[in-house]
Amino acid sequence: MEYKGLRFAKMHGLGNDFVVIDAINQRFEPTPENVRRLADRHRGIGCDQLLLVEPAEGEEADFRYRIFNADGGEVGQCGNGARCFARFVVDHGLAAGPEIRVETLGGPMRLRLEPDGQVCVDMGVPRFDPADVPFDAPERARRYPLEVGGEHHEIAAVSMGNPHAILRVDDLDAAPVARLGPLIEAHPRFPQRVNVGFMQIITPRHIRLRVFERGVGETQACGSGACAAVAVGRDNGWLEECVAVDLTGGGLMIRWEGEGKSLRMTGPASTVYEGRVA
Amino acid sequence: MEYKGLRFAKMHGLGNDFVVIDAINQRFEPTPENVRRLADRHRGIGCDQLLLVEPAEGEEADFRYRIFNADGGEVGQCGNGARCFARFVVDHGLAAGPEIRVETLGGPMRLRLEPDGQVCVDMGVPRFDPADVPFDAPERARRYPLEVGGEHHEIAAVSMGNPHAILRVDDLDAAPVARLGPLIEAHPRFPQRVNVGFMQIITPRHIRLRVFERGVGETQACGSGACAAVAVGRDNGWLEECVAVDLTGGGLMIRWEGEGKSLRMTGPASTVYEGRVA
Repeated sequence: MEYKGLRFAKMHGLGNDFVVIDAINQRFEPTPENVRRLADRHRGIGCDQLLLVEPAEGEEADFRYRIFNADGGEVGQCGNGARCFARFVVDHGLAAGPEIRVETLGGPMRLRLEPDGQVCVDMGVPRFDPADVPFDAPERARRYPLEVGGEHHEIAAVSMGNPHAILRVDDLDAAPVARLGPLIEAHPRFPQRVNVGFMQIITPRHIRLRVFERGVGETQACGSGACAAVAVGRDNGWLEECVAVDLTGGGLMIRWEGEGKSLRMTGPASTVYEGRVA
Repeated sequence: MEYKGLRFAKMHGLGNDFVVIDAINQRFEPTPENVRRLADRHRGIGCDQLLLVEPAEGEEADFRYRIFNADGGEVGQCGNGARCFARFVVDHGLAAGPEIRVETLGGPMRLRLEPDGQVCVDMGVPRFDPADVPFDAPERARRYPLEVGGEHHEIAAVSMGNPHAILRVDDLDAAPVARLGPLIEAHPRFPQRVNVGFMQIITPRHIRLRVFERGVGETQACGSGACAAVAVGRDNGWLEECVAVDLTGGGLMIRWEGEGKSLRMTGPASTVYEGRVA
């Protein structure tokens, strides 16, 4: 393995796991090949995404937060990763305080390490305009009819920086995630494909959610999916401002004051071990 | 995660990956739950097997070498792990020299770290008696006809401590590993099921091999399978004493002087990183 002596932390947020590297105090070149080698679970360290802590380029941020998928491609957003990023920079003494401003490919973000060790992430403003999702519909609606595999379903569509379709179901355990997920993900009315969330409302302050992620399949926990579900639930008058979301991998708390405001996601970030490449 | 502060190394042999723990200088209790938690690739460290270095119980060995599968169960033998074990005890200053004698559930083993960093492992004496494999056949033969899914095939059968069936093929890339592997693995003539090796002979000193492992499926590299293939190839007069074996994950060198002697396997052992549980 290259990068002999490279120090890193292995972390996870609800089972979504990360290799986190301080690229301020040591040199790391995130070429696709280097990322793929580190992300390899048998011959490398192994992770879903590699997170890099870099110096900020502008005055408005404390750090640059970069995210690479295991295939080496750089991506703009990862909510579970953002929580781990905040925890890492505080635990490693890189941040001056618990409030952290970061630059990402997807724009600026604000993170805050809470006294209980959880991390609150500003996830931005949901956009319901079909052109923003993008979703093929004549006008903005709270819910849309959708023909899927010869069946009639009803969905909501929202962008959290990435596209989400939300279906409300009565029984999440029986929800046809594996059957409908891929059909809706690739539906022609979503030209950039879509993440598909199946939401069961337990109470106006407590939902359960399973997410079929675009290009991935069903995952343990999707932070932007949790935000999308709460935005849709609020938009339809089903939910209150502060909602507990139970995902397969664990729980998040989502708060949304309403139209034009940012959603805030609070959840755990766990350090599993600290390592050093041999 | 439990075991805060626990130190470990992450290693691999031809892509078969291990968490290796010095349980002489620190305390580690290998309960099934502890093993499963460490072996978890998302919330733990992640590995195919966990290897423990323990003090020897008898006078005849330097260490006790224990092997746990990711599901928490203890097993008797792992050739790729044995190479990493030897490298670990030498690199961490636990061994007095390059010759290491270990106790395992499967009996004593001898390991030797070569000057080039490769490790030579004494893999024991192959047993061809059908009752030893076990394989249902009236008498010992070099090859046996076998009916599989309505087709007639010819196999050899040998025990390397675990049961192996070997098929000779002309073109390994086109070999029906995925189709025949599970059918032979579960064939009623192998009452304890069987590992299935597909061997292409390039020259009498060079073979290619793919192995469908019992209870696992096709793997990158199976050390006992490489030994079984060479034992069978020698038994049939196809191979010479020292044979290079190309597995999917890389190469091993196998040496067998013949009937009644131990097979010796030489191959690489790589340390990927050193870690400490947070």
